[in-house]
Amino acid sequence: MSVTAETAVPSDHPGVDELFGLLAYGQLSAFYRLSSDAEMSPGLRGKVAMAGLAATDFEHFELLSSALSDRGVDVFEAMAPYTEILERFHASTTPSSWLESLVKAYIGDGLASDFHREIIAALPEDVREIVRESLEETARSEFVVAEVRAAIAANPQERSRLALWARRLLGEAVTQAQYVAMQREALAELVMAAAGDINNLAVLFDRLQDEHARRMEALGLS
Amino acid sequence: MSVTAETAVPSDHPGVDELFGLLAYGQLSAFYRLSSDAEMSPGLRGKVAMAGLAATDFEHFELLSSALSDRGVDVFEAMAPYTEILERFHASTTPSSWLESLVKAYIGDGLASDFHREIIAALPEDVREIVRESLEETARSEFVVAEVRAAIAANPQERSRLALWARRLLGEAVTQAQYVAMQREALAELVMAAAGDINNLAVLFDRLQDEHARRMEALGLS
Repeated sequence: MSVTAETAVPSDHPGVDELFGLLAYGQLSAFYRLSSDAEMSPGLRGKVAMAGLAATDFEHFELLSSALSDRGVDVFEAMAPYTEILERFHASTTPSSWLESLVKAYIGDGLASDFHREIIAALPEDVREIVRESLEETARSEFVVAEVRAAIAANPQERSRLALWARRLLGEAVTQAQYVAMQREALAELVMAAAGDINNLAVLFDRLQDEHARRMEALGLS
Repeated sequence: MSVTAETAVPSDHPGVDELFGLLAYGQLSAFYRLSSDAEMSPGLRGKVAMAGLAATDFEHFELLSSALSDRGVDVFEAMAPYTEILERFHASTTPSSWLESLVKAYIGDGLASDFHREIIAALPEDVREIVRESLEETARSEFVVAEVRAAIAANPQERSRLALWARRLLGEAVTQAQYVAMQREALAELVMAAAGDINNLAVLFDRLQDEHARRMEALGLS
């Protein structure tokens, strides 16, 4: 990533707690969504792959929970401001098929990772490592890519339907991210510190779009 | 445990693969049941506790899966004979409330652990450790005990309802275990090797009953 903040925020910046709370609930809700989506899997292999993604998300949740506790913050209090927004995101993007759930897992995970990787520059050194670990890209996502590509090859009409679905996921994610930015001042400050200034903020969002486009290509949906 | 088999079966006994397959599907199906039952939790703390139990089950599944692969056995093939029986168990014991799901998690986990701990004596040394690790009692079950006891204290009528539920769980588990024993000869042989002879088999089952009774007491249901 090419973003380098002039100065990282101090370790006790309240935006760090807000970021950890957001990440923690994000991982927890992803755990539940993935394990519930897995019921749509046509076979046991898909179920195992989804369970693996979900279990990794829970490990990340535990990492963030203990990081918050080290900072003297209760994880449940830290998550509270984000539960409604994240549940709204999930409710508005409930997959109606196994393929849609795979695309959501891949696109959603990727977007979250990219966003947090962008703001890492603004974080004090001791906090960076926690964010990095909690966003560790799982090797299991290869399974998703292979599965989606195979489905499109077998049924080319799926391509445009899934491409539309992926676009909706991006739109909803942006909408909910804007809500978060409006409501959580300290977190918004962290993002601004990462971008450097308002112009660079646009550049940051462009980069997120580019990464999204790259993932669409990986899935065979571009 | 006081069981000591005269001789452990050899490492390449087919019953070991059957045991690992049964354990693997047991852990995987527990993962899915726990994470789906968690939806009934009235609060986020309960959800997190259930997710933790589920994630531990998935770790155990991965351990068994790689142990099978080391033995040259595909985990999906090894699990296949048990999917129907375990799904039948779960279908016949679907919790209708958060408390029922907590009791099921605790009683079911405990029964499975005890049973496998009993047959450990018949296992060759290199296999014992894998079974032990995959049955590691999670500290998280304290949460279940506290939650159930509090619910009973607040509403004493729950006690007899939940006690009945726990008895049904035991009955269904025994029924399905008998199916497994009838259908899987090598696994039944392993159990016999652990017990020593047919008389000791009765002693083994008595001990399982005792442990179950001890758990009922821990939950305040005896």
